[in-house]
Amino acid sequence: MNAEITPVELRHRIRSGEHTGNTSGFCPGFVQCNMVILPKDWANEFLQFCQKNPKPCPVLGMSDAGSWEIPELAAGLDVRSDLPSYKIFENGEVVNEVTDVSEYWRDDLVTFMLGCSFSFEEPLIDDGLEVRNVTEECNVPMYRTNIPCRSAGRFDGTMVVSMRPFLAADAIRAVQICTRFPSVHGAPVHLGDPSLIGINDINNPEFGDAVTIHENELPVFWACGVTPQVALEQAKPPFCITHSPGCMLVTDIQNSKLAVM
Amino acid sequence: MNAEITPVELRHRIRSGEHTGNTSGFCPGFVQCNMVILPKDWANEFLQFCQKNPKPCPVLGMSDAGSWEIPELAAGLDVRSDLPSYKIFENGEVVNEVTDVSEYWRDDLVTFMLGCSFSFEEPLIDDGLEVRNVTEECNVPMYRTNIPCRSAGRFDGTMVVSMRPFLAADAIRAVQICTRFPSVHGAPVHLGDPSLIGINDINNPEFGDAVTIHENELPVFWACGVTPQVALEQAKPPFCITHSPGCMLVTDIQNSKLAVM
Repeated sequence: MNAEITPVELRHRIRSGEHTGNTSGFCPGFVQCNMVILPKDWANEFLQFCQKNPKPCPVLGMSDAGSWEIPELAAGLDVRSDLPSYKIFENGEVVNEVTDVSEYWRDDLVTFMLGCSFSFEEPLIDDGLEVRNVTEECNVPMYRTNIPCRSAGRFDGTMVVSMRPFLAADAIRAVQICTRFPSVHGAPVHLGDPSLIGINDINNPEFGDAVTIHENELPVFWACGVTPQVALEQAKPPFCITHSPGCMLVTDIQNSKLAVM
Repeated sequence: MNAEITPVELRHRIRSGEHTGNTSGFCPGFVQCNMVILPKDWANEFLQFCQKNPKPCPVLGMSDAGSWEIPELAAGLDVRSDLPSYKIFENGEVVNEVTDVSEYWRDDLVTFMLGCSFSFEEPLIDDGLEVRNVTEECNVPMYRTNIPCRSAGRFDGTMVVSMRPFLAADAIRAVQICTRFPSVHGAPVHLGDPSLIGINDINNPEFGDAVTIHENELPVFWACGVTPQVALEQAKPPFCITHSPGCMLVTDIQNSKLAVM
């Protein structure tokens, strides 16, 4: 694997079919994004939902209706082909998984790019903290909670959180580091007793994989980008496209540029 | 009580004997300091101890040897008379408690002013957090821990911490707020299980008063300015002066000026 190519080179390899599958580990230091594509009449409400719930739904960029470009995130982007894999939804159900969505394209489609936890895991690791799901080479564990999202039109739901265990001093440090990155989920939303946010079994995450929690470690919970996906599944728009898990948009933006200080 | 007088007016009232006792609640918004006065040959080592342990021992100002002025903190200061009460120590033992130390003054005395938790409790409260020791109108509970200080010459010891209980989300917010104030103890040093830092009974603080910890609250621990006092008691310098508890230097510096952002 050649992790040292530039984001634009990687996007071109994805577009040509030379690169397939997961983007994690590629272009370290650059922001990767979750993607949601919706028809314009649903996009306005989705944007409102994100605006009201910025911690789980941080919008880093969006397109004009019908446009496949988001120049502030990625030079020469074609969102129809520059992600390795896409899921096509109809009425909340997956109907296809494809590597190019050109044949599904419509003039009323609006693309949203949302921040993801890769962008804050990197500064945590750079600071010497151990991110358990990275160490154990698995997906981060994610859980449904009882924390309500603020509803917007047809979008509603509760927050999904990701969990990373830390010793208390490292949890405090993680709060500091992630506070610098409000546009990629920011500071944790909870730490300690999982039951206080409606998580009954920390060893059985609803999404991703369980990770080891060592004695003396606190589970630390972050707002998670799966929240808008769950809201989408519940709202059941007639048509929707998302990235496939792990197959993200790799942008030209350095993670460090998202730091507010 | 007239809390609206300026710091310089309050210091003049203290100097004249018009104001006696506690300074807490006076001149809200202005930094109050813990004070330590040592002979020069001990002062150098004490400064090193503070430099090596900045979280419990944040030096906001120090005088030249023999001088009673610290102009960067307080205009026209006379440290010999501008605090309401002083403790005189000989060989680590309190030998007197007085309202003026002019008769004890020596040309080799160096005065240290150290940041205190009043400066971060105020922004916590301003942000809507409940600071339990303020609500319950008592002293903050303080505990000896097993967290070692870095030694410097004859100064050594373990860290003393203060504790304020919060719900998890408020604890996370408190980390953010206090991170902005590194010169007044900064972010907490621990949260959650007290036994992990050597505290065996959270309801029996070694200093100050116990406070209520409600169900679902986490104890959150900050490095505490009693740490240098304990180090002083252990080092037993032949001569030393400190403020009496609660009888602080009220400076001309606004708390907000200590925020790094």
